[in-house]
Amino acid sequence: MEQTWLLIGIFAGILSVIVAMGLYFWVMRQDDGNDRTREVARWIREGAASYLKKLYLALTMVAVVLGFVIAIVFSFDLYQLGNGHVDIESTRGLVMAAAFITGALCSAIAGYMGMTVAVQANVRSAVAVSDTLNRGFRVAFYAGSVMGLAMVGLAVIGMSVILLLTKNPEIVLGFSFGASALALLAKAGGGIYTKTADIAADLVGKVEIGIPEDDPRNPAVVADNVGDNVGDVAGMGADIFDSYVASAVAAMLLGAAMAGADGFKYTVFPIILCTLGIFASLIGIQFVRVGKNGKPGVALNFGTIFTCVLFGLMVIALVLTGGYDLSVLWSTLIGLTTGVVIGFTTEFFTSEDFKPVTETAKVSGSGAAITIITGFSYGLLSIFPSIIGIVTATLVSFYLSEASGVVSGVYGIGISAVGMLAVSGMIVSSDAYGPIVDNARGIAEMAGMDHEVIERADVLDSAGNTAKAITKGFSISAAALTVLALFAAYSEVIEARGLTLAISLRTPLVVAGVLLGAMTPPIFSALTMLSVTHNAFDMIEEIRRQFREDPGILAGTSLPDYTNCVSLAAQGALSSLVLPAFLAVGLPLLVGFVLGPDALGGFLGGAIFTGVIFALLMANAGGLWDNAKKFIETGQFGGVGSEAHKASVVGDTVGDPFKDTAGPSLNTLITVMSLVSSLFAPVIAAFHLF
Amino acid sequence: MEQTWLLIGIFAGILSVIVAMGLYFWVMRQDDGNDRTREVARWIREGAASYLKKLYLALTMVAVVLGFVIAIVFSFDLYQLGNGHVDIESTRGLVMAAAFITGALCSAIAGYMGMTVAVQANVRSAVAVSDTLNRGFRVAFYAGSVMGLAMVGLAVIGMSVILLLTKNPEIVLGFSFGASALALLAKAGGGIYTKTADIAADLVGKVEIGIPEDDPRNPAVVADNVGDNVGDVAGMGADIFDSYVASAVAAMLLGAAMAGADGFKYTVFPIILCTLGIFASLIGIQFVRVGKNGKPGVALNFGTIFTCVLFGLMVIALVLTGGYDLSVLWSTLIGLTTGVVIGFTTEFFTSEDFKPVTETAKVSGSGAAITIITGFSYGLLSIFPSIIGIVTATLVSFYLSEASGVVSGVYGIGISAVGMLAVSGMIVSSDAYGPIVDNARGIAEMAGMDHEVIERADVLDSAGNTAKAITKGFSISAAALTVLALFAAYSEVIEARGLTLAISLRTPLVVAGVLLGAMTPPIFSALTMLSVTHNAFDMIEEIRRQFREDPGILAGTSLPDYTNCVSLAAQGALSSLVLPAFLAVGLPLLVGFVLGPDALGGFLGGAIFTGVIFALLMANAGGLWDNAKKFIETGQFGGVGSEAHKASVVGDTVGDPFKDTAGPSLNTLITVMSLVSSLFAPVIAAFHLF
Repeated sequence: MEQTWLLIGIFAGILSVIVAMGLYFWVMRQDDGNDRTREVARWIREGAASYLKKLYLALTMVAVVLGFVIAIVFSFDLYQLGNGHVDIESTRGLVMAAAFITGALCSAIAGYMGMTVAVQANVRSAVAVSDTLNRGFRVAFYAGSVMGLAMVGLAVIGMSVILLLTKNPEIVLGFSFGASALALLAKAGGGIYTKTADIAADLVGKVEIGIPEDDPRNPAVVADNVGDNVGDVAGMGADIFDSYVASAVAAMLLGAAMAGADGFKYTVFPIILCTLGIFASLIGIQFVRVGKNGKPGVALNFGTIFTCVLFGLMVIALVLTGGYDLSVLWSTLIGLTTGVVIGFTTEFFTSEDFKPVTETAKVSGSGAAITIITGFSYGLLSIFPSIIGIVTATLVSFYLSEASGVVSGVYGIGISAVGMLAVSGMIVSSDAYGPIVDNARGIAEMAGMDHEVIERADVLDSAGNTAKAITKGFSISAAALTVLALFAAYSEVIEARGLTLAISLRTPLVVAGVLLGAMTPPIFSALTMLSVTHNAFDMIEEIRRQFREDPGILAGTSLPDYTNCVSLAAQGALSSLVLPAFLAVGLPLLVGFVLGPDALGGFLGGAIFTGVIFALLMANAGGLWDNAKKFIETGQFGGVGSEAHKASVVGDTVGDPFKDTAGPSLNTLITVMSLVSSLFAPVIAAFHLF
Repeated sequence: MEQTWLLIGIFAGILSVIVAMGLYFWVMRQDDGNDRTREVARWIREGAASYLKKLYLALTMVAVVLGFVIAIVFSFDLYQLGNGHVDIESTRGLVMAAAFITGALCSAIAGYMGMTVAVQANVRSAVAVSDTLNRGFRVAFYAGSVMGLAMVGLAVIGMSVILLLTKNPEIVLGFSFGASALALLAKAGGGIYTKTADIAADLVGKVEIGIPEDDPRNPAVVADNVGDNVGDVAGMGADIFDSYVASAVAAMLLGAAMAGADGFKYTVFPIILCTLGIFASLIGIQFVRVGKNGKPGVALNFGTIFTCVLFGLMVIALVLTGGYDLSVLWSTLIGLTTGVVIGFTTEFFTSEDFKPVTETAKVSGSGAAITIITGFSYGLLSIFPSIIGIVTATLVSFYLSEASGVVSGVYGIGISAVGMLAVSGMIVSSDAYGPIVDNARGIAEMAGMDHEVIERADVLDSAGNTAKAITKGFSISAAALTVLALFAAYSEVIEARGLTLAISLRTPLVVAGVLLGAMTPPIFSALTMLSVTHNAFDMIEEIRRQFREDPGILAGTSLPDYTNCVSLAAQGALSSLVLPAFLAVGLPLLVGFVLGPDALGGFLGGAIFTGVIFALLMANAGGLWDNAKKFIETGQFGGVGSEAHKASVVGDTVGDPFKDTAGPSLNTLITVMSLVSSLFAPVIAAFHLF
């Protein structure tokens, strides 16, 4: 039976990838306009390609080195190490390394497909929106679906195949680590890239020279638009992809740890949930349509809710007919509901319909400092509903499962995380829509399209921002539940090696671990944000140099050298990743080997606690400042050009690296730290037993 | 022998209070200048008195209510509650309530003395500095010493008397809770007050009307100067006072929990350390002198180091001759050294001699957003050295003590916290110096003194800022060690009731507790900062009303109504305390009673971890922005009036509530939460056993 489900999973994954490719070709068949729009789009496309080339070259090297390390380390029979003699089984090492490389590859392919379609869809959406709003919406949304579907498809294929061949979820852990390690670098690198270009382009263009945003005379304008793609499309997709796989693998490991013949049944269950989620997403995507006079934001939210309900019904049918314990149904539904509720409460803090944004906009009349203090304070308050949601989901799913007598409590937590993320196909589709329409708006401006078209593109854009806020709350909460489950999985893997793991806060080594872990997310945030400002200053020098050496650029008679800025941003972003990558992969191993597995447990706990808090703070404060500025730009409190507007621009600029660089990488950071700890747990256990 | 030491403690305390009173009368004998300076000083004094009156009225009510609750709750014999029958011993309840009230009273008296002398010393220091720098310095420093010495004196008298009479450190816990509850309200209230007035005065005065800082035509100018006293003098003093008592009581409880006849010996040991610290401070204060051409900052630092060395020598002599285990010597010295080292590394992030401040000043040329991002990022990085210091002190003192076989490991942590704080007499003296010279400078400006005098007052002021940065790092680290020790004390108190406490991060209830605890410090920060902006806007309305209704104010022909602004600030601050006070006292009890003692342990852990991180971030980022502005004002990067300066003013204003409202209250918050948990631990344990 489980074998059949794995085969169905592979089928669903292949179907999902095929639909994604179909949508890709559909998008490519759309009109890409005249020579002017085509040229602008080509600049962005080539810039993105040049960054991706550099990124993937660097990632290949990282993957090869890590794969090599994994192949060697896992060749030792670690179960035996504690007994004083070591067997060498090179097959196990090779299999683990292969799983790792495959995970990295799948993540890279999904990101690449998403980027490729995004840089083709932006111009096509701009052209389509000049026809009707609905057509522009459709191009952008289907393009977003390419990444969403490719991603979940590849993930489920990868996990199912590995489980079918090896029956061992610890090998899937290697796959997940590959996906997450790549995601972290793609996400942090993209986040640094996009804000470097954004800030440099604005500071020289808007502030020093006084030319408008997206003006083609600005040498950094292409890098800025490339940034939207590499940061928001590829980066954000990688973020949910890695949570998606990690949540499934955590639940699998916890399922496998349960005693009894049912172990494998519950090991495969997370894959079944993902499979059903794919079917629900494939159907849900068909129902996302903007009617006459309809609002694109409503269409996206309707699609999400519809998919969730459909998925919920499928799970009810599955559990009732498949002989599963009822508790896994509750865990799934609790996760799903919590995700949706947290997503929508996030909107309270970041939407112009509620007090946090309007009050921040209002106080902006008294200067930028008050904008910052107020937005930052509401960002801190926004932690509250999400934490309550996470705590509730954790406790309810744990105790219901524990009470069932069939599955373990921590398995319930794992399943609630999978329940949240199973509909990722739909979530990523509506999230990737955002940067595409953002780009479409930029292209419409750069290519000099009609005012009316730009206004319609604005409508699409603001719907993207609402969808983005919701998915951000969703993805942070899902990551929190996932890492809590991974944390439990880490404990299981350690104890399976015969060590007793006591992560008691009454042990000073554990407290030391927690303190060290707790400082990692803030330090990581600081490093990535400082990279942004440092790199931006390098790019500012380059822009000034171009204006100085060729006065024809500002006169509009000669083209600036876009590629120089593009490659500066790319090089800066990649070289800034060394220290953050060490924090993510090296520090947990260091703590594990030096202070021991208990302290490493504390370390993971500490990193999870502050990681979630800083991720929520940064995402929500950033979104709030962004929308406060937009609210003022609609004419409130003096509108564009007023003192309030100037202050809100400062808030928005501070929020940029908060919400697009540091904040969204934190999910991935804590996931990678949890995965690397679980993966190397046998080695650490053996080292301390030895 | 222990009895003798307690008597010596009482003697040292009385001596300390007598010296404090002597210094008070010395300060009062100094020249308070002419009618003009006297009038300005009187406004500030009366404003401070009116706030203190309101504050103490509110605090008295809170103390009476809490005292009543304590008297009733502790009348039940909680040891028996678990056995199914309850004895009522009303004496115990009354004793505990009396200890609580005494603690609150001592804290209030020390704060009141500090404030009283500060509002007399400010004008006298201003007058004295017009004579020589050294005379101005002496007046301010001796005035600061009044609070420092009164505080440690009253604390040691209180603790020694209770221990002498009852032999029971749990009663001292009541004393400590009284002191801390009052400190939290004084500190948070003062922090809200001072920044409300500061921001309102600046926004209307400097920004809207364009009159200089400290201009007597501004109706909020008196409230602003009152704020410096109630926020910095009374608030900061209360902060160290409560850590001082809490660290001693935590070590006492851990000492009492150790088996064997030596228990009482080690229970009294913390008091002996405090006693030696008083002697060292009394001597050290004599050696703080500014020579010819000497620098006041060097004099303050020399005094601190000298006192620490003296104290270290005394402890060595004590341990070697008193038959104590050597490990307590190491713990004391490790705590002392770590405190000093962390204090000085804090300077790296907040002094204009190092990269964080100079880089933030430099990038300010590109606008306020970059100032904020850079300063915030360095603030996050500043967490690193302090956490490493805390972790090192915790681990080394724990394992050395554990290895001794004589004292418990956690007792070592407690002693290292006491070692850090034993020299508080000296630390508070040089810290309280800061706001006094700040005020002296304001009075010199408002009273129209010579330019040369104001320049000299500036020199005194900047020395105060350096001392302040060091003591802030010191007090946060000390609070962290203290709450870690209190955390252990909580566990001991619970287990003494026959419950097994398992604060394992593998238990979902504990994880839920940690998450709830971890969100408390950020939420508390948000609430206090939002209170500042809300109250500031109320005051802005009042200032505008006065200018509108009486044009004579701006013309300089009629005096503004200072008292209205003073009482607005006071009322706003006090009414803003309700929710933060609930978070501090109500939430831990709620978690304890609903989720149980294990979850409460997790809650305390979570609050400690994020509390320390946010306290460090906010204190250091705030200090960094402040000094970046001052650095630019020395003529760097364009100097006053440049774009860089404007941006740095935004940074400074954002930093104000960070470093003076939210940040410094967090220490006290986590101390109060730990104390209330330990105090009510028997009740919570009984409730869950029942």
